[in-house]
Amino acid sequence: MLPDSLSQGQFDTVYNLLSLVIAAQLFTAIYLLTVQQRVLPRYRAALVVSAVVCGIAAYHYFRIFASFKAAFVTEAVGGRGTYTQAVGDSFNEGYRYIDWLLTVPLLLLELVVVLALMRKVQSSLLVRLVPAATLMIALGYPGEVSDSNGIRFVFGVLSTLPFLYILYVLFVELTKSLDRQPEAVRRTVSRMRVLLLATWGVYPLAYALPLLGLDGASAWVGKQAGYSIADILAKALYGLLIYRIARVKSFADDPAFAATEGHDESGQPEPTTQRSAPAASAR
Amino acid sequence: MLPDSLSQGQFDTVYNLLSLVIAAQLFTAIYLLTVQQRVLPRYRAALVVSAVVCGIAAYHYFRIFASFKAAFVTEAVGGRGTYTQAVGDSFNEGYRYIDWLLTVPLLLLELVVVLALMRKVQSSLLVRLVPAATLMIALGYPGEVSDSNGIRFVFGVLSTLPFLYILYVLFVELTKSLDRQPEAVRRTVSRMRVLLLATWGVYPLAYALPLLGLDGASAWVGKQAGYSIADILAKALYGLLIYRIARVKSFADDPAFAATEGHDESGQPEPTTQRSAPAASAR
Repeated sequence: MLPDSLSQGQFDTVYNLLSLVIAAQLFTAIYLLTVQQRVLPRYRAALVVSAVVCGIAAYHYFRIFASFKAAFVTEAVGGRGTYTQAVGDSFNEGYRYIDWLLTVPLLLLELVVVLALMRKVQSSLLVRLVPAATLMIALGYPGEVSDSNGIRFVFGVLSTLPFLYILYVLFVELTKSLDRQPEAVRRTVSRMRVLLLATWGVYPLAYALPLLGLDGASAWVGKQAGYSIADILAKALYGLLIYRIARVKSFADDPAFAATEGHDESGQPEPTTQRSAPAASAR
Repeated sequence: MLPDSLSQGQFDTVYNLLSLVIAAQLFTAIYLLTVQQRVLPRYRAALVVSAVVCGIAAYHYFRIFASFKAAFVTEAVGGRGTYTQAVGDSFNEGYRYIDWLLTVPLLLLELVVVLALMRKVQSSLLVRLVPAATLMIALGYPGEVSDSNGIRFVFGVLSTLPFLYILYVLFVELTKSLDRQPEAVRRTVSRMRVLLLATWGVYPLAYALPLLGLDGASAWVGKQAGYSIADILAKALYGLLIYRIARVKSFADDPAFAATEGHDESGQPEPTTQRSAPAASAR
């Protein structure tokens, strides 16, 4: 629930964190579009999806930023003082849920697409992961906007069920499909799943803050901070790890491409002095 | 601390400098993205990161500009007169710190990546430089937003410790890794370190102005001018020097590429009249 007032420090914290998320998502999106040529064509779709996810997040954070700015006002000269809720404008938490409804299925799509599994395995993973992700977000929303802790609790539990199912698919089913992947890819996928678990875990914690009797201004600021930082890790950092997987797999698939990029097959850059010959011959 | 009022000249100075920074960063970012093809693929990551840094800075300066414009108002007809702090809006110094939190680690990343050192040396430099840079910015912020000179001083000193560590890594550790680099690269790296020291040195000076008893409007304008000019040198000019290093190294690595670009191996442009033959043969 939106607090009646925020201190200057609380207002500044949310304000600056929201701007940080905009910058992080926007420029990660631009970066991921710019480095397309640095992976083989078959991995570019995963990079484009990652860029789209960060772009969608940047758009929603522009909206969230404007909504937050309009929702609180201060009468102090120089704008240094207590902020209270504005008349006629409220903070719209719905932007976050619309964002997640679009981006969370895409995040799972990125992970499956970059692995370039066999078409049958890929389809089988996606038809289970994408509906589960959509259900997870849709079930969280009624609890988020409700002022009743009972309703918040019930929908929180309902939303956790598809979340647990997604973890099952990623940690059990996906593992079976990784046998033929290069060692470096297996390691990175393991790290990504841990990142996914750790950052996605922040969302239910932030969601549960009002249930823990921690309502009020600091709980609300904590929730906004938690959602913001989790969004940076789960989208921007995650997208950069997808790029890393795509690079490693590109080098493993095509030694000539690895040489042009100044890497040997294992993905290690060669010493500069030894480079000229293979680079020239690879052209 | 934000001054209660600014003269017309002071207001105009900050206003125009902020606009200058936007133009410099935005078009340097576009330039660096446009010249990708003019270096070998292995150096393009450094150029993209340089462009992203300038892009992030441009975004934050748009925000800083809007924040500055909203923070001061004048009652004079035609807007020529003394500016005083606005009701309900303040200048947000936090944008600078969020910008630096994202860009300073990336600036160090650019420098290390463009040198294309062996993967082990590269990782060893980055795991020390990036956390130190993040710590340096994070420790500066509490002092910057505090109205107490004591707190400003303490966090200023704390923030200086990681800064000195970064200088140690760049001037001592990095030097050991430059043996195998071409002479022209060694020279440019030396120049970049001096640029880095000179421009990064402006930030602590601007930060310390209030400690020197120079509070008030002119000290505040001086601080904004110092930060703005330092940001142009440390991001845009620095990015262009990264491009120069990438060019020189591309020519040294691949004579055929150098010929296509109309340069001999040493990176010296050949006289125009002799160019057509080798360029044509390299195509």
